[in-house]
Formats: sequence, C-alpha cells, structure tokens
Amino acid sequence: MANDKPFQIFTVQTRPEDGPPRLAALRAEMAKRGFDGYIVPRTDAHQGEYVTAQDARLGWLTGFSGSAGFAIATQEQAGVFVDGRYRVQVKGEVDLAHYTPVNWPEVSLAAWLRQALPEGGRVAYDPWLQSRKEIRDMTAALAGSNIALIPSENLVDAVWTDRPAPAPGPVRLHEEAIAGRTAAEKRAALAGELKAQKQASTVLTLADSIAWLLNIRGEDLPKNPVVQGFAVIDDDGRVELFSEPSKFGPEVRAKLGNDVVILPVSGLPAALGELNGPVRLDPASAPDEVFRLVEANADVVEAPDPVVLPKAVKTAPEIEGMRQAHLRDAVAMIEMLAWIDAQPTDGSLTEIAVVEKLESLRKAQGAHDVSFDTISSTGPNAAINHYHVNELTNLPIRDGELLLLDSGGQYRDGTTDITRTIPIGTPSDKHRLPYTLVLQGMINLSRLRFPKGRAGRDIDAVARAPLWMAGLDFDHGTGHGVGAALCVHEGPVRIARISEIPLEAGMILSNEPGYYREGEFGIRIENLIVVETAESPDNRAMLGFETLTLAPIDTRLIDVTLMSSPEIDWLDAYHARVLAALGDKVAGATRDWLVKATQPVAR
Amino acid sequence: MANDKPFQIFTVQTRPEDGPPRLAALRAEMAKRGFDGYIVPRTDAHQGEYVTAQDARLGWLTGFSGSAGFAIATQEQAGVFVDGRYRVQVKGEVDLAHYTPVNWPEVSLAAWLRQALPEGGRVAYDPWLQSRKEIRDMTAALAGSNIALIPSENLVDAVWTDRPAPAPGPVRLHEEAIAGRTAAEKRAALAGELKAQKQASTVLTLADSIAWLLNIRGEDLPKNPVVQGFAVIDDDGRVELFSEPSKFGPEVRAKLGNDVVILPVSGLPAALGELNGPVRLDPASAPDEVFRLVEANADVVEAPDPVVLPKAVKTAPEIEGMRQAHLRDAVAMIEMLAWIDAQPTDGSLTEIAVVEKLESLRKAQGAHDVSFDTISSTGPNAAINHYHVNELTNLPIRDGELLLLDSGGQYRDGTTDITRTIPIGTPSDKHRLPYTLVLQGMINLSRLRFPKGRAGRDIDAVARAPLWMAGLDFDHGTGHGVGAALCVHEGPVRIARISEIPLEAGMILSNEPGYYREGEFGIRIENLIVVETAESPDNRAMLGFETLTLAPIDTRLIDVTLMSSPEIDWLDAYHARVLAALGDKVAGATRDWLVKATQPVAR
Repeated sequence: MANDKPFQIFTVQTRPEDGPPRLAALRAEMAKRGFDGYIVPRTDAHQGEYVTAQDARLGWLTGFSGSAGFAIATQEQAGVFVDGRYRVQVKGEVDLAHYTPVNWPEVSLAAWLRQALPEGGRVAYDPWLQSRKEIRDMTAALAGSNIALIPSENLVDAVWTDRPAPAPGPVRLHEEAIAGRTAAEKRAALAGELKAQKQASTVLTLADSIAWLLNIRGEDLPKNPVVQGFAVIDDDGRVELFSEPSKFGPEVRAKLGNDVVILPVSGLPAALGELNGPVRLDPASAPDEVFRLVEANADVVEAPDPVVLPKAVKTAPEIEGMRQAHLRDAVAMIEMLAWIDAQPTDGSLTEIAVVEKLESLRKAQGAHDVSFDTISSTGPNAAINHYHVNELTNLPIRDGELLLLDSGGQYRDGTTDITRTIPIGTPSDKHRLPYTLVLQGMINLSRLRFPKGRAGRDIDAVARAPLWMAGLDFDHGTGHGVGAALCVHEGPVRIARISEIPLEAGMILSNEPGYYREGEFGIRIENLIVVETAESPDNRAMLGFETLTLAPIDTRLIDVTLMSSPEIDWLDAYHARVLAALGDKVAGATRDWLVKATQPVAR
Repeated sequence: MANDKPFQIFTVQTRPEDGPPRLAALRAEMAKRGFDGYIVPRTDAHQGEYVTAQDARLGWLTGFSGSAGFAIATQEQAGVFVDGRYRVQVKGEVDLAHYTPVNWPEVSLAAWLRQALPEGGRVAYDPWLQSRKEIRDMTAALAGSNIALIPSENLVDAVWTDRPAPAPGPVRLHEEAIAGRTAAEKRAALAGELKAQKQASTVLTLADSIAWLLNIRGEDLPKNPVVQGFAVIDDDGRVELFSEPSKFGPEVRAKLGNDVVILPVSGLPAALGELNGPVRLDPASAPDEVFRLVEANADVVEAPDPVVLPKAVKTAPEIEGMRQAHLRDAVAMIEMLAWIDAQPTDGSLTEIAVVEKLESLRKAQGAHDVSFDTISSTGPNAAINHYHVNELTNLPIRDGELLLLDSGGQYRDGTTDITRTIPIGTPSDKHRLPYTLVLQGMINLSRLRFPKGRAGRDIDAVARAPLWMAGLDFDHGTGHGVGAALCVHEGPVRIARISEIPLEAGMILSNEPGYYREGEFGIRIENLIVVETAESPDNRAMLGFETLTLAPIDTRLIDVTLMSSPEIDWLDAYHARVLAALGDKVAGATRDWLVKATQPVAR
C-alpha cells in the first residue's frame, strides 16, 4: 500500500467552536425522542484503537481528539470523560463554556449521571457501540438511581448532516508463507474448539480477529491493516463474513473459498436473529446489540473471543516475518538516529521534522504505513504520555534537551514498535540517573528467564525495580502485546499489573519502561521481545525472551557506575548483534555512526 | 509459660499398624448409619495449623502426621490426600495395604469420589470441621455425580474410645503496652465496621482472631499461643465468647469487663440459632455448621473475617515488641551458630541435637515456646520442604554438607522465624552458586522500595529473579505473614504469586527464598521484615522494608563475583548492624565468633 499520501498529518482536525451547535442539535434530537441523556463513545462497533472518519463521533461532537474516552450529554451538561493521558489536551480541544472535562475512571459514568439526573431519567445509547459488559456494568452501577439505559438508534448520526461517506479500502491476502497457517487450518481449529465446548457458532466482532482468521489484510483504518466487519463461524468452520462486498476482489474471493461467504453488513441483524444456539459471544468485545439480536432466538454462552489467544501465540513463520521486518525497520531507525546526531542543536530541528524524516526513511524500506502515530517529543512534551505532535504543539529540539522518539512501521511481513531517547547536543546530568534506571529495567526484562505459568503481572516488577529502588516509577504498562503484520496494540497479554494470563512461547510483546518528570522531560526505551522456551539445569519449564528490535540504544546518558556487569554485558552484546546484523546494510557516514554507536560501554 | 516440658519431641507419635483396626471400626460405624463414605480432615473447627491431641483425628485414623491433608474412607478404599510436601512422608506413616496416598490437589476429592463411588452414594462429613467454602466447592465439583454430601456427627469420635480428654490451658492477658490498642478500642472499631456495613453481628471462629481482638493469649495448642473458642460480636461491640470457662481466671475476667461474656461452648448452637441478621460470616474459615445454625433464623452476609486485615497491620508498640523479641532471639541464634561451628564435623552432631541445643538457648532468653517445630535438616533431608526430624529420620551432620536450620521462638512480646543455612566443615563448591542466588534474592527483597498498592504477587519476582536467571526456582512462597506474639503463619498477606492483597505499612512478613536439589541438599535464608513507608523524590506513595531479624548470614558459601555492589553493601551494612546491636549481649568465644561472622565480605 506504499503510496504518496503522508502517513501522518499535523493539522488540528477539530475546532472547539464547532462543538456547541452540534451539541445543540443533539439535544434537540434527544428532546424530540424523549431522552434525558445520550452517551457518545469514542469507539466504533469493533472496539479498536482507531476509527474511520465516519465513526469519529466523539471528536465531531466535542472537539476532543484522543484515542479513548466518551461523552454524555444531558440538556444541562455535557461531560467529556478522559483518562490521565488526556487531562491537559482535552482542555485545549473542547469549548469549556459548553463541555465539562471529567476525570475518568476516578469519576464513573454512573456517578456522574446520578448527579446530573438526580430525579432519574432516560439515558440512550447506541447498542452497536457499547459492549455487553459495558452496558451490564453501567446498569449495575446505576442500580437504585431510577435512571434507565435505553438502546437507541445513533442520535449523533441523526444530526450529523455532512457525515463522511464510508471509504473502505481493498482487501488483500496475507501470505500463507508469513502467516504460517492457512485460513482453512485456522477455521478448522476454531471449529474444533467450538465443537469441544459444545458451542454451535460464534460471532467475531474484533477486526483483527477476522483478519487473522482469514489471512486477509485491509485498508479500512489508518495504522491498523484490518478489515472491518463481523464474522459468524459455525462449528464446521464455515464463515459468513458481513463486510462491504466491493472490498473483496476475485483473487481474494477465490482464496477464501466456498466456506467463506461474503455478505453485506445490512444482512447481519437478520442473520444473528436466525442463529441456533449455543452461540459463543465475548461480553468484553461484542456489541450489546449483537447479544440482543442473538438472544432473541438462541442461547448465548459467554466466553472470550476464541481467536484472541491463538492469535497472540505467533507461528515460527510469523516470528521470522517479524525478524525480517525489524531488519528493514532497523535500517530506517539507524539512518534516522545518525541523521538526528548530524542536525544543528539550535532549535531549527522540530518534532514534526523528525516525524516527516522518519516516515520517508520507513517508506524507503517498504513500510506501507506507520503502526501508530509517531511520538516525537522533546522537553516537557515528552512527559505527556501518548503525546502526538501537531502544528500547535510542535517544539524545537534544542541542545541539552532529550528527544523521545516512539514509532513503528507496518510492513507486509511484520509490525514494529521502537522507542529511543536521544540527548541533543551536550548531555545533561539531570537526565543521567533516570535514563540509566530505565535502561536497567529494560535490560533486566530482556535478560529475564522465568517459569512457565507466570503472567505479565508476575514479571512487571523486574522492569520497574531499578526505578522503584530510587523511589521512582512510571504510570503506564511495561509492555503490550503486538500483532504480526497486524495491530501494534494487541490483546490479551501485557506486561502490567493487570495482566494475569500466563505468557507462552511465541507471544510478542513490547518492553518499554520509562520515566517522566512533568513539565521537564520524558524518557522511554523500547524493544519488541518474543517469548521463547529457555533451558533449566533442573529441567523446569522455563521461558525467556528474544529481542526483535535492532537499533543502537544511546549510551551517552548512561551512568555506568550504577550498572551491574551482567547488565553492561547484555548491552555490549546487543550492540555487537546490531552491528553484525546491520553493518553491511548502511553505508558512508551512517555506517560510521553505527560503528561508533555500537561500541562497548567504557567500564 | 516457660517450663521444664520440652517444646519438641522426636518420638514417632503414630504407628502404621494402628490404623487398620481403627479404619475397620469407622467402616462399621459408616455402615450402621448408612453412609458410603466419610471425610476426615486434619483441621479442627478453627482451621488453624495445629490441633490438640483430641482433634488429631487424621493421624489417629491413618498414621499420617503432616500438618495438612485429609482422608476419605469408603468400604473398599481409604484415600489419604497429601500435598507435595508430604508425598514421601505419607508412605512411611500409613499401612499401604489399607490406605492409598493420593496426590492432592492434582487429584481432587470430587474426582476421587467419582471413581470410588461410580454409582453415587452418601458421603458424610462433620460440618464443624469443614468450612462453608469447602462444602460449597465440593458440592459444585460433585454436580451430576449422584453423590450426596451429608452433614453428620463425627464418626471418628464415635469409634475413638480412648480419645484424649480436653486439656485447655489457662488464659492470660496480653499486655496493652505491647498490643498498642486496648481490647475495648478494637471491639469499638469492629463494631463501627459492622455498623458501617449494616451487619448486626459477626461470628469469629479463628482462634488468633479472638486472641487479637480481646488481647488474650492461651495454651490450648502447641506453638500458637491462642485461645480456642467462638466469639459472637454485635454492632455495639459486645462479645459472647464461647470457650471453656475454667480457663478464664478472675484477673482476665475483670480486664475483659462486662461487655465480654464467657459462656460454655455447649451453648453455641442455641446462641447462633437466635441471632438476628444480617450476620457477617467468612465462608473461607467459618464452619459449615456455623452457617447452618445461623441461616436457620437470620440472613447471612458473606465477607472476610473482619479481624484478619486489622490484625495484619501491626501497631507501633507491636512492632517494637517484635524488635525486642528479635534481639533476645538473636542472642540465642548467635550462640547457636557459634556452637555449631565449634562442633566436630565427623557426624557426631545430629539434627536432633541441634534442635535440643537451640531450644535450651531460646528458653534461656525467655521463650515460652517455639513458634513452630524446628526444621533442622542436613543433606537430602533439607531438600524436603517442611521436614521435621524424628528418631527415624535423624541424620548425622557431616563435613561438606549443609545444615538448614529454620526455627522461631514465642516470646511475650513477639514471635520470631529465622532460617540460616550453614556449611559444615569444608564448604563445597556445588553449594556456592545456589547459595549465592538465594542470598541475592533475599537481599533484593530486603532492599526493595515499591509503590503503595502493590501486592505480594507483584514483588515476588524480585526475590526469585536471581534463581530464575540461572534456570532455577523454588516451590514455596517467598514469604508469609507473621503474627505479633501470635501465630507465626498469619493471613491474609503473603509474598507469593497467589497473594493479591496490597501490602500496607506495619505488616510483618517473612522473606525466605530457597533452593532444593532433591536427594542432595537444601538452602533457605530467612529474615522477618516489616513494611514501612519509604521516601520518593517524586512524592509517590512508596513502601519498603525494615529487617527485624538480627543474626549473621553465613558468608563462607558466597560467590562474591556474582553479586552487585549494592547487594554486598546491604550485606555488610546488615552485619554491621547485627554486631552493633548484639556485640555487647554475648561474650567470650561467642563474641569472637560474632565479630568474625560479621566482617565485611572480601570483594
């Protein structure tokens, strides 16, 4: 899909002043239909991280452009619920005379509704946009309040007169040689799982579950190469795929075969109503409306989406594809890091210029997209988690500051995600201690061997302990699952205190401890790692990690006196590996830079 | 209670040949009453770790003397369910022609019953000896089996003709200056909690909950200075204590006051039947029969025993009492370690001789009991977790072997638990690597600072990582809660993968990583630690540990090249602290030994 369209733009897409008239129109529609409140989530029916322009209802209504959150409108109030990442950003994006930012999840939707509607009332929601679990939890939290949650047509859509038309992209086949299993094999395995559980069918609603199952990729969304749709799979492995039929060309249709029937999405409600049970549905991801339609005629069995766990355990060809993609991505990253070091440090280089340069380098390596909006941030911007630069926030990158660069590419054979933190000009001593502690945590997790059966929660402390010992910490997970030529943020496993699913060989995760000093600077160092079996002299079942990401880790900010010999040994060996793998893939000044950047650390 | 009676005996208390006639008598009783199976647990109605001679039904019936497990008898089979600690021991203790050891929890009671009674049947249990949760879980696991669980009188008691009479010990007051809160204050706080939860009363069935609440201690059981009984507390803080009245002398009664009424245990059933609800009961600890009696006339609210969490958070005076007890215990331990180093290494010293010597040294320091049966184990015995030496297993302690010595004392002001592993004669190189890794884990946990809100599960990896990195691990928790002048094993928090309750300042835990090579040797190093608040340059709420235990950690087996500077620094500082605290409390050769044992490690 490499094309001339830029992967990222930096113009602000929403304006605070657009919100109030839209809110007024929504309120008129609510009044007409007799609703006292209306809930507008950020997500679409597929609960993914990105939405199409057509589904960007939250931004349209409020101006808030973040990737998570929701709004609730009553006739008197309009709460915009955002988490810790967006507390500052939301204040610049919404008209504060008409919208009230709400600290979520500290304040729950139910608690807010109880104060907004003390006498009770009818609150409508679009049951396609809320999962069954969300509705169930909200209903429980509203118990005794006399507030009713009412499923409804989408009221934003009813008043959004110039709503963008759907712009589905073509579906392409994901190579079997990279996937490692054919779609037929995956369907048969899923059918076997359904039969074993005595489930007649299941409905997949997550776009990456469908893409993985059928070995297809698409362009419906930016950054995530998924195909939007809903798939009904029966216990013989036959699939009815409800998705825009025009996206599927003859080659794709031929490969999918007769057991995969492509149908228009408009046919989904009727089809769900005709299913025979038991139908397996995942309350955490399937829309409330999918439950409602199925429940009308069939028994529902609640269980996790059956694709999520198999998808997380990568095949050997998938892992090899990831290695190959990382080699190409490493060329782009090394060229990038060498280029940054050659730039003036007087502030003429900006955050946006870095993004644009890196995008051009990745395109040259065959990336068809970035895997998420690049985080290029310096100074205080780098202390804002999930900061994305735009024209209004774009800072010059100056001597003595840090540049935190978190980015990734989408390649046909793999997905990358790498963070490096670079001292600009003269390294500053104030960065040295936290940089070293973050690096030690990253190294300790990279080196870790641990017993099979342990979850991300059980090893999270290893990456944090160096910071903890200094009284420091960071407020995000240590690692997330990563898709293979799929979504860069993939469930179900994480390295975080909330992740209790045991790690298994083949799972790919990020390893990205950080440190953030508000108003001053941010540090993060990130590699992708794949879980592999490890040896034990006692023949215990042990696991360890192979590091996939190959790019120098800046050594100029290391306080070597804090590091143990095994930690320095790891770093030196990593750099030797980077040089061996990439040394003949770059040339000239870039190669000279690489040789220098991968020298052993002076002890 | 210091007296001349030995704290521990080494004669084997049960004989395999005693079991079969008792089993026959039980089967006759079962047949008479129309039961096809009968369950005999190890515990009494108070679910503690120790039982009285009168309640030692499992040992009486089977010969198995372990501290956990249960038996089930049918007319054809008698399964003795034991966990991994007791797989070897049980085979030597039961008559294998009549009893079948069962690997539990791998084989569940329900699975075993399904094979033993394939046509279904009536299985009786004593509802005073099984918690509500146990019965509920068993019932669920037997669903569809046509096997019924029937509460019954105790059938072992019915056939145990020479069952020992109760031998309750006198109740004494636990000093308020050590407890840090009066019993009236604790009762008022508990009443407030009940009122806040709209619970009219609760029933305490755990003996240490009652001892803590009322600031009393007793001698009903060995090792645990608790008072057996049941306490009904109402939301005004009034207590009906059902316990042998003759145990309570006038001084104790006067101190308990008019709001604590002491009643005979025989009155409990009628009192439970007369309670007005809602009554708070803990399904994990309260006997099924307590539920049954209360449920007859009142609503039950299931919630954890409300004493367990407050009891785990020690007051400042409790912590100070623990420090003082540890100073005296340290004198005994230092004398012990010095004495061991002075003994011949030709095998004339035995495991039992070590226990007896240590007991005499603790008595001299004022211990009124040991806090658990001392684990004195050498060679392959030390690889058996929870090994307790007796006349049949007693090994000579020889040159080149390790001695693993895990012990503790009960003092009026505190409870201790310490493990040291000592190389006998010439240190052997095969012990050096695992010893150093275990020590590193122990040190790393001791040094850890971590964010408030994290549970034992979240920091367990810190103590294991050095072993994990070498492909090694150990199959027990890293730490358990410890009572203050109470039970050495105390809930609810642990440092273990199953412990999800956040740690709080004031909690006291053990820190005891280990390594065990089956058939060869065992290593464990253990200190007690108390959670304390810790500083953070970022003003995060952080916690750390103060180490309570003060005794040299053997340095002869350390491979110093594996240790980091901060680890060695910690060890040297610990030894300096031990010398400073204890140097003037021992004299002569013992002091010379202490000075040498606390020297900084050669780097």
